[in-house]
Amino acid sequence: MAMTIAGMRAMAKEKAAFAELHAQVEQCAKKEGSNGKPFWELKLRDATDTLTLRVWSDSPNVPVCESLTEVDCVAVEGEFFQNGQYGVDARRWELRRLFPDEREALFAGSEETRIKVDHDYSYIESTVGKITDPRLLALAQRFLETAGSRFKRAAAARVNHHARRGGLVQHTAQMMRSAEAVSGVYVTLNRDLLVAGVLFHDCGKLWETCPPEEGFAIRSDIRGELMGHINIGVEVINTLWRELDRDAWKDLQPPSDEVRLHLIHLVLAHHGALEFGSPIVPKTPEAIALHYIDNLDARLEMIFQGYEKGVETQPGIFDYVRPLGANPIRPLPVVGA
Amino acid sequence: MAMTIAGMRAMAKEKAAFAELHAQVEQCAKKEGSNGKPFWELKLRDATDTLTLRVWSDSPNVPVCESLTEVDCVAVEGEFFQNGQYGVDARRWELRRLFPDEREALFAGSEETRIKVDHDYSYIESTVGKITDPRLLALAQRFLETAGSRFKRAAAARVNHHARRGGLVQHTAQMMRSAEAVSGVYVTLNRDLLVAGVLFHDCGKLWETCPPEEGFAIRSDIRGELMGHINIGVEVINTLWRELDRDAWKDLQPPSDEVRLHLIHLVLAHHGALEFGSPIVPKTPEAIALHYIDNLDARLEMIFQGYEKGVETQPGIFDYVRPLGANPIRPLPVVGA
Amino acid sequence: MAMTIAGMRAMAKEKAAFAELHAQVEQCAKKEGSNGKPFWELKLRDATDTLTLRVWSDSPNVPVCESLTEVDCVAVEGEFFQNGQYGVDARRWELRRLFPDEREALFAGSEETRIKVDHDYSYIESTVGKITDPRLLALAQRFLETAGSRFKRAAAARVNHHARRGGLVQHTAQMMRSAEAVSGVYVTLNRDLLVAGVLFHDCGKLWETCPPEEGFAIRSDIRGELMGHINIGVEVINTLWRELDRDAWKDLQPPSDEVRLHLIHLVLAHHGALEFGSPIVPKTPEAIALHYIDNLDARLEMIFQGYEKGVETQPGIFDYVRPLGANPIRPLPVVGA
Amino acid sequence: MAMTIAGMRAMAKEKAAFAELHAQVEQCAKKEGSNGKPFWELKLRDATDTLTLRVWSDSPNVPVCESLTEVDCVAVEGEFFQNGQYGVDARRWELRRLFPDEREALFAGSEETRIKVDHDYSYIESTVGKITDPRLLALAQRFLETAGSRFKRAAAARVNHHARRGGLVQHTAQMMRSAEAVSGVYVTLNRDLLVAGVLFHDCGKLWETCPPEEGFAIRSDIRGELMGHINIGVEVINTLWRELDRDAWKDLQPPSDEVRLHLIHLVLAHHGALEFGSPIVPKTPEAIALHYIDNLDARLEMIFQGYEKGVETQPGIFDYVRPLGANPIRPLPVVGA
Amino acid sequence: MAMTIAGMRAMAKEKAAFAELHAQVEQCAKKEGSNGKPFWELKLRDATDTLTLRVWSDSPNVPVCESLTEVDCVAVEGEFFQNGQYGVDARRWELRRLFPDEREALFAGSEETRIKVDHDYSYIESTVGKITDPRLLALAQRFLETAGSRFKRAAAARVNHHARRGGLVQHTAQMMRSAEAVSGVYVTLNRDLLVAGVLFHDCGKLWETCPPEEGFAIRSDIRGELMGHINIGVEVINTLWRELDRDAWKDLQPPSDEVRLHLIHLVLAHHGALEFGSPIVPKTPEAIALHYIDNLDARLEMIFQGYEKGVETQPGIFDYVRPLGANPIRPLPVVGA
Amino acid sequence: MAMTIAGMRAMAKEKAAFAELHAQVEQCAKKEGSNGKPFWELKLRDATDTLTLRVWSDSPNVPVCESLTEVDCVAVEGEFFQNGQYGVDARRWELRRLFPDEREALFAGSEETRIKVDHDYSYIESTVGKITDPRLLALAQRFLETAGSRFKRAAAARVNHHARRGGLVQHTAQMMRSAEAVSGVYVTLNRDLLVAGVLFHDCGKLWETCPPEEGFAIRSDIRGELMGHINIGVEVINTLWRELDRDAWKDLQPPSDEVRLHLIHLVLAHHGALEFGSPIVPKTPEAIALHYIDNLDARLEMIFQGYEKGVETQPGIFDYVRPLGANPIRPLPVVGA
Repeated sequence: MAMTIAGMRAMAKEKAAFAELHAQVEQCAKKEGSNGKPFWELKLRDATDTLTLRVWSDSPNVPVCESLTEVDCVAVEGEFFQNGQYGVDARRWELRRLFPDEREALFAGSEETRIKVDHDYSYIESTVGKITDPRLLALAQRFLETAGSRFKRAAAARVNHHARRGGLVQHTAQMMRSAEAVSGVYVTLNRDLLVAGVLFHDCGKLWETCPPEEGFAIRSDIRGELMGHINIGVEVINTLWRELDRDAWKDLQPPSDEVRLHLIHLVLAHHGALEFGSPIVPKTPEAIALHYIDNLDARLEMIFQGYEKGVETQPGIFDYVRPLGANPIRPLPVVGA
Repeated sequence: MAMTIAGMRAMAKEKAAFAELHAQVEQCAKKEGSNGKPFWELKLRDATDTLTLRVWSDSPNVPVCESLTEVDCVAVEGEFFQNGQYGVDARRWELRRLFPDEREALFAGSEETRIKVDHDYSYIESTVGKITDPRLLALAQRFLETAGSRFKRAAAARVNHHARRGGLVQHTAQMMRSAEAVSGVYVTLNRDLLVAGVLFHDCGKLWETCPPEEGFAIRSDIRGELMGHINIGVEVINTLWRELDRDAWKDLQPPSDEVRLHLIHLVLAHHGALEFGSPIVPKTPEAIALHYIDNLDARLEMIFQGYEKGVETQPGIFDYVRPLGANPIRPLPVVGA
Repeated sequence: MAMTIAGMRAMAKEKAAFAELHAQVEQCAKKEGSNGKPFWELKLRDATDTLTLRVWSDSPNVPVCESLTEVDCVAVEGEFFQNGQYGVDARRWELRRLFPDEREALFAGSEETRIKVDHDYSYIESTVGKITDPRLLALAQRFLETAGSRFKRAAAARVNHHARRGGLVQHTAQMMRSAEAVSGVYVTLNRDLLVAGVLFHDCGKLWETCPPEEGFAIRSDIRGELMGHINIGVEVINTLWRELDRDAWKDLQPPSDEVRLHLIHLVLAHHGALEFGSPIVPKTPEAIALHYIDNLDARLEMIFQGYEKGVETQPGIFDYVRPLGANPIRPLPVVGA
Repeated sequence: MAMTIAGMRAMAKEKAAFAELHAQVEQCAKKEGSNGKPFWELKLRDATDTLTLRVWSDSPNVPVCESLTEVDCVAVEGEFFQNGQYGVDARRWELRRLFPDEREALFAGSEETRIKVDHDYSYIESTVGKITDPRLLALAQRFLETAGSRFKRAAAARVNHHARRGGLVQHTAQMMRSAEAVSGVYVTLNRDLLVAGVLFHDCGKLWETCPPEEGFAIRSDIRGELMGHINIGVEVINTLWRELDRDAWKDLQPPSDEVRLHLIHLVLAHHGALEFGSPIVPKTPEAIALHYIDNLDARLEMIFQGYEKGVETQPGIFDYVRPLGANPIRPLPVVGA
Repeated sequence: MAMTIAGMRAMAKEKAAFAELHAQVEQCAKKEGSNGKPFWELKLRDATDTLTLRVWSDSPNVPVCESLTEVDCVAVEGEFFQNGQYGVDARRWELRRLFPDEREALFAGSEETRIKVDHDYSYIESTVGKITDPRLLALAQRFLETAGSRFKRAAAARVNHHARRGGLVQHTAQMMRSAEAVSGVYVTLNRDLLVAGVLFHDCGKLWETCPPEEGFAIRSDIRGELMGHINIGVEVINTLWRELDRDAWKDLQPPSDEVRLHLIHLVLAHHGALEFGSPIVPKTPEAIALHYIDNLDARLEMIFQGYEKGVETQPGIFDYVRPLGANPIRPLPVVGA
Repeated sequence: MAMTIAGMRAMAKEKAAFAELHAQVEQCAKKEGSNGKPFWELKLRDATDTLTLRVWSDSPNVPVCESLTEVDCVAVEGEFFQNGQYGVDARRWELRRLFPDEREALFAGSEETRIKVDHDYSYIESTVGKITDPRLLALAQRFLETAGSRFKRAAAARVNHHARRGGLVQHTAQMMRSAEAVSGVYVTLNRDLLVAGVLFHDCGKLWETCPPEEGFAIRSDIRGELMGHINIGVEVINTLWRELDRDAWKDLQPPSDEVRLHLIHLVLAHHGALEFGSPIVPKTPEAIALHYIDNLDARLEMIFQGYEKGVETQPGIFDYVRPLGANPIRPLPVVGA
């Protein structure tokens, strides 16, 4: 089976080896070398990383390059090696377009990732299904119905944590598990509101840090840039809200608009402080709980990634992780483990 | 004619004098003194300040106090004096309810203020009328039609600058004059967008720092507390937007939703930085211009108020103004003036 | 039964009433009035608040005052009332020393509080008992054995949250519940280490914010001032550690000193950032988790206290809580509740 | 006509092409290659950018290199191309010294720039001429007489905004237009003082960020480093002041020294806050106005440069501009434009 | 002999007692009481503190009050006592004008203070006399000649440290001793420059925090407010510099203007960072040394004052000192002491 | 004699030259080039700097490379030159293992450094010997006895100041000289405590920034990462303390534990503020003095290094030194020097 770019990079750090990569073309640009001869700069991307290769004018890969566009997907088969300080390069390699089924598999992701995302998504659906407030229930279910497939491929961030296709579902599911656990400890928390807050807190990212259906790159658009994901989130809630049958709720207590305001407050305040981009600070117990549940998951994911991706440069000390402001230290093993 | 509370306070600092005040009852609470006898604590408010008086059980004003509620308006006629460190007090005073015409005059404000607010409001209306983009024109005019009277009585802030009935109209008009002036200097600025941005930048304050039609106190409500005026402003724009006939614009360039996004960006970004409550920083020339035009007017108003209300404690040096972080210094007079 | 000072204050805000207070003398100072006559200023404190009363030279309470010292406990029976802006005062009151059983009851606290603290303490003991690492188990149990009674009366803070006798047990128990709940969500966390970290994170406060056995005031001492509670906590761990039979552990993995270092790291890093007094930032998953579990409990306790003690000044809006930087907003009730 | 370095770079990004550059030699150093052979590293600079070329020992350009010094100006004619990641390089190129008229034209700048700077400078002169206070008028005119030519070639900054020969005149002129516009809105502002403040606010930069008469590089000197441009500015004002005939003003109101202090205050306070390098915060209306007028022009210039020089990496989104802390978003076009 | 206000306050905290105070009138204002009768509010100030007394209309002190102005000095003889929460008050007191010799003694200060200031001043003079650079020597001596008496009565600050008549001489002398001591450790420091820097670093305060010859209050003026003491200091240096015979130095190395720039740099940079009001950070060894020598003396003086003036609220713990951000802890005594 | 790497780099900047370097192997890794051929990447380190060389497969140095490990020391003799932008490289060079005496000399350091460190260390010993408090004396002498050789090779920091073998002794000695000098100025300072505080303030760095006996690299370990040097320092003091014969001191005043607390306070507070890593701020005169004495030495060392290692890019202006936030300016020479 094809290797990922990240997997290949890890392998090539150790020693040069043959491998087959499947990836999407991000750019294939014809350029001119210092000797005046043309070459092609081919930038590839998969779900894990990017890779740039050069195709010289005497290469048998030239004809393929000449017809590539940014939606094409290709296989690269060859020997990959660490080229001194210049990073990973390839030699004796061949380029071809992917077959339709290979292409489909490329975007579907690994079996393991798909199972994990499906599992987390099911957990979100079932937890949402237990919401007792009919307003929050209807709103949450409508969100899953209308935006579910986009949700499944969104990332939780551009960098730092859960910055990968499907990362937002994983982040949301883990936070929902924490929300349920914490609600068992602080029993006066409004569990319906907190669960709905977890579901919607980053929903603006479906439009801000979401790759296309057939693609891996997370692009910005002017809506995301002009409004930010917090305010897109508020707009998502308000749009869904207006589509619901609100007349049915007119006798409910608390009043429906108060429910809406509290939910919007959770979205607006979840960064916890003005300087982190929340235009308002948390003013309800659920807003406070959501903020810490979010930070807890983001920070733990960062340190777990730090162990997985970072190098152990000294015994027990891993590469510096900028947003943690620290070098992760190897966790204390369980006794006797 | 009746004196304002602020006017009376200024007068009493100099010497005790008779005056008649017209004001609304903010609170009239029956309390018990250390000798076990009851007294009434009467808190009054007009457009300029508040005043607390005590009515002892042997006072002829007791019967009036017994029937007062928080919507009533009263006249206080008596001798006002500076009571040592305890602030201003009254003696030999009489309390009565206002007649209907007096009450109407109380809320209408002084002739001078009314003329000033009307003048500024007319300027806003006529400047809005010159907007050439039909989307921004329709939105702005609908805002003035539906929220004009609320706009006229809103304050620009709870404290610091323009913190008075009608202050928001004055602040907005002055900023609009600056916007027009600055657009003459930076000719590539989109004047339509900038004018609309000025109009809407604080529109959330119509619901956050707005006294009731018949009242002076600026009360908080949970919408303002949970969302903040910036996000209420976005909601106001979106609500008005949906009420407009958007089909008529479908062929216009730039697309209508881009117009809406740019306007919302101006509202979101007008505080200029995250730590000042904007969830996003200015990213367009108009957003930058709006931020500085807003700050310029707010700061100049603060220093002008500092000269007017503060005491000149040393020659040329006025009382410290906290949000300026400085003691205003007497402005340099024009030569020969 | 005797009323608490806090309970009396709440009652007197509504109307003057008779009550009997039991409290400890904090100060009983003879002073001289402006008329040259002596009076006694009597400052009382119980578990809930303080109260200052004056005893004039013609009062029947003078003889009692003359013999009071700072360890005495007294009953005050009389009529308490809100004295205008001067706060609560008493009239027609009598002062007497408490009987031994009354004194004992005063320091033991209310039945409700005792039950709550005992319940929480038992939960801590049983959770500690489930620690599987023999080093952490021995250390934690020795701590409870040697410092348990001091632990039960310590406060979690001087102000802000859990600032009362027994507050630290409640804070620790609630955090331990969260730690167990969160460990169910993040299954790779070292539960033994996290539970021990919760137990010891504030243990320095047993010497920094702890009232005496028979007293309510939390006094500073130079050890607390020169070292701070975080470093006292490290010293507590190291002192207990040296008293344990460490030879028995010499073949265990991970090595015992690594266990000690990880636990000390949790104590040092639990404030989360240098500017909040941690000399080192969290660098392990358990240190990250502990920091957020601590903050979550502290902040929720602050907002719950804000609802309980603060006034609802506008519908749904409570008095400003400084460490939250916000006015708490009335929580959204559960639907139909 | 000769191309600028910036123009050539933009061209070469698209495709390799022949061009002729005129530039000044910044450095021409003989170095030794890894093969032991010597080569010359030739660093050139014009008003727009810098360019480094290498001359190998077998090149016909060696003789010219051997005699070049840092004041010489040269023409480079050849084919320029984008050399992969190494930036722009040249091939088949010839080097020669400029003829005297070419040299003169090089320093005089482009026709377009010269016209623009002359136009702005005239505007400054005529606005200064309208100052009515004889002290400020004399001071401002003396400044223009004695330092005018230096003023015309100064930059407003080393980086960020108006960082080019003539940039300070453009920045000052635009601010003066804003000052006049804003004075029409806030009619109590002292227009004489504000105009003089604009003229002098950055005058220290004539000695801090000013290229030599025949040169492009902006060098530091120890006066600028030890004092900073704000304090050099104060020294400039004080030096000019002492040269004026102050006796003639001795009966004027306000007193001359007060005029001087207010002007110095504008210079000292124009950064608006201590952390931005002003030793004192704005304390007069004119100081407040000057600060915002300055920031408005600097920020707008930055975003306009961001559109001009930055790449539109996503539709409507330009390269990040560090001092703005943002990616500029394409401005909203005027409707129908 | 007459007591100081500070001495009287300390005494009255313990018990009521008779004393005679000599002080200057800061304000003597006729006001009206709640009963309509006039009284005089008399605010007095000496070198240590202020005191406010009231003179009721039936007092024998009324005639004296009626003729007092703000330059007068008076004696108050009577019984001073702590009036509950209202602070110190007097009873049975008499007011009279000081005799000329008493007045002279009042401004001359206590014998102890005069001796201390004279001693420190002599030390400054002799240390200045050892400067070897003729430029710095001439400048420093001219400063002492022309501004010496003003220097002797200036304070080092309005609050916090050395905030008393003569405080600047003490602060400067102590810093000069440190500068000499530190120059012995870091032998490459330019001792001449460092000594001159110490002398001039706060010289702007001679005009910013300096009481009048016959007075105690430290008043602001617009020069201090518009420029700040750092920039007044630069102006002082430049003014003195121009008065010197600079022709004599034209062949000296380093050049005289470089000497002047380095000295000005020391003044400008001595706060150490922009946010503390230095427009430039330290860039020379002497500037770094001066900054720390200044802070060391200021902070030590604050903590010494904290021990002297603060109350020891718990054993070894003194009242909070705001600028230290700490409660001073009783210093460790020397062993056996 | 062999040259240091730093010395060679400085030489090669000027021109290519032959030299012999002695250094330790940090890494010798076999890698594969883009042509598929192997090469060795040899990273060397001495007390001054690091150097990376490549050994191609056809080099006579290959056999040596094949057997090198990270504890070996080698001589490199050849021609060193500046290879364009790639830094310094070597040609025609030979590699050999060091002889035992060469190896010993390599770790012993230069004669000059050894003399300097020995001189400073002796000064520390003799100053410590003058401590009069027997507790502080015993503690300090025990520290020197047990940790002296480690102390001599520790660095004061990983970067920024005194970041070299032996740097901590130099930093400590210089601070001790300042402490003695400053104690002469502020005579109430407890000199014993201050001297002991200087000795111990960075003692945790013996385990945090200390190279091995035979090595130059400063490695992290998990103790340093989990505790930080401040808390290791406290642990060092407490460990030594327990080893002393404390019974002998039981009648001394002040009590021994108070002495220990004050010393620990000096270590904890020496960074001066929470945000710089001190968990507690200075609260005693000695803690304040220690903080400034430490900063003074660190900053002066940084600027002196800036002159020594930085390039004078403009007349009198040196390369930017990041922790100073400034370009050092050439110090003002002594007059006539």
